Amino acid sequence: MLNKEQLSLEQSVFEKRLSGLGIVLPDVPKPLGSYVPWVMSGNLLYLSGSVSSLYQNPDGSHPFIGAAGRERTLEEAQAAARYAAMVQMAVIRDALGSIDWVKRIVFVSGFVWGVEGFTDSPKVINGASDLYGEVFGEAGRHARAAVSVSGLPGGATVEVQTIVEFDV
Amino acid sequence: MLNKEQLSLEQSVFEKRLSGLGIVLPDVPKPLGSYVPWVMSGNLLYLSGSVSSLYQNPDGSHPFIGAAGRERTLEEAQAAARYAAMVQMAVIRDALGSIDWVKRIVFVSGFVWGVEGFTDSPKVINGASDLYGEVFGEAGRHARAAVSVSGLPGGATVEVQTIVEFDV
Amino acid sequence: MLNKEQLSLEQSVFEKRLSGLGIVLPDVPKPLGSYVPWVMSGNLLYLSGSVSSLYQNPDGSHPFIGAAGRERTLEEAQAAARYAAMVQMAVIRDALGSIDWVKRIVFVSGFVWGVEGFTDSPKVINGASDLYGEVFGEAGRHARAAVSVSGLPGGATVEVQTIVEFDV
Repeated sequence: MLNKEQLSLEQSVFEKRLSGLGIVLPDVPKPLGSYVPWVMSGNLLYLSGSVSSLYQNPDGSHPFIGAAGRERTLEEAQAAARYAAMVQMAVIRDALGSIDWVKRIVFVSGFVWGVEGFTDSPKVINGASDLYGEVFGEAGRHARAAVSVSGLPGGATVEVQTIVEFDV
Repeated sequence: MLNKEQLSLEQSVFEKRLSGLGIVLPDVPKPLGSYVPWVMSGNLLYLSGSVSSLYQNPDGSHPFIGAAGRERTLEEAQAAARYAAMVQMAVIRDALGSIDWVKRIVFVSGFVWGVEGFTDSPKVINGASDLYGEVFGEAGRHARAAVSVSGLPGGATVEVQTIVEFDV
Repeated sequence: MLNKEQLSLEQSVFEKRLSGLGIVLPDVPKPLGSYVPWVMSGNLLYLSGSVSSLYQNPDGSHPFIGAAGRERTLEEAQAAARYAAMVQMAVIRDALGSIDWVKRIVFVSGFVWGVEGFTDSPKVINGASDLYGEVFGEAGRHARAAVSVSGLPGGATVEVQTIVEFDV
């Protein structure tokens, strides 16, 4: 799976698509606690949750911190979810050597920090789901649960956590 | 697994039990975002979360929208959880062709939209767990986590998400 | 796997380490609803969530009930998470006969009941993650998602839920 010669012989579909979209993945963040970014079990890759709070504008401001429906608009929250999915893809590449080894995005847990009674978690998490669809096509069509919670690490607007099936 | 002739030869235990309980499963709802209702990986079926907000009374009112402990009583929230589990069973049938192919309900994530400090998420989610027990018997005895969150899609009182092991 | 003679011949690493840390695991609690403490599927063990509310001081008080950031300090919430992980280990022993059969702690879901906007769920859940690291070493390095929710069963400060890969 991690054989780089084999990889160069394969048609590198998902990495090419990612480049074609002009997306440069962020660095894999240092875990916020005593855990690891990913664990493999069988042909499943369990990712740790990625939070949108890590993103920083060039001016040092944090656009993806704060509650959806109060500090953040729906559009900002969707962008936060898209960013969290980009971090998840960076972790997938770190784990597998390339996102080309993704066989299926199996499941996405989407957590939105929203105001009490926030109802639009599905629209927010679509920011992540849409990106998976753009990059992985059919292999990116996943099952999902989206909920709104009362707080996320570092004040993040969104946390996304993914289970991936990979080619062995 | 989807061979309908084979299925007709099998003793259709769970479907028969469901009929015997007088339960007619609802339609599989259209996903609220860019994801799919289920994904198979190995012999596990990952369902997307089902929300109670979709249910509508004949008069057009929605009994399973609103926070438990404020708009909804414990009994209403339990009924909402039971309904969400019925939707999950409809998705299982859609995925496997029949709920008879269920080998084990493995895990249930139960999310309740409750007032701040809501403590009765286990009692609420029993509405779903009890139904799985009634229909699947021993095969319906699952592991579970139940929490109360600050908001669910469409203002749903309950969201239920299930992982199923099926016969291959 | 449950052969006790075989087990006595094995080097009982994790149980020994647990004893060496002076940790006596609590009893496996009775489920708070119509579910079971664990389900096996393939070589994965899915545990039901364990809540910190069950712990009781000798004087009958409950130190691990209440919202982090209001009734409970960060340190108390971390101790609550550590306790919840001890309960999870008791369930693992119940399922496998001994915690020595753990091959890998795969994934931890950590739920903190925190005040609105609570940002320190990672620090709180480290109370659980650190204990897994102390007992299981490399095998205890897990993927994780930590969020803050608006309420947990019985008013618990923390709920921890674990997926374990075991030796077959």
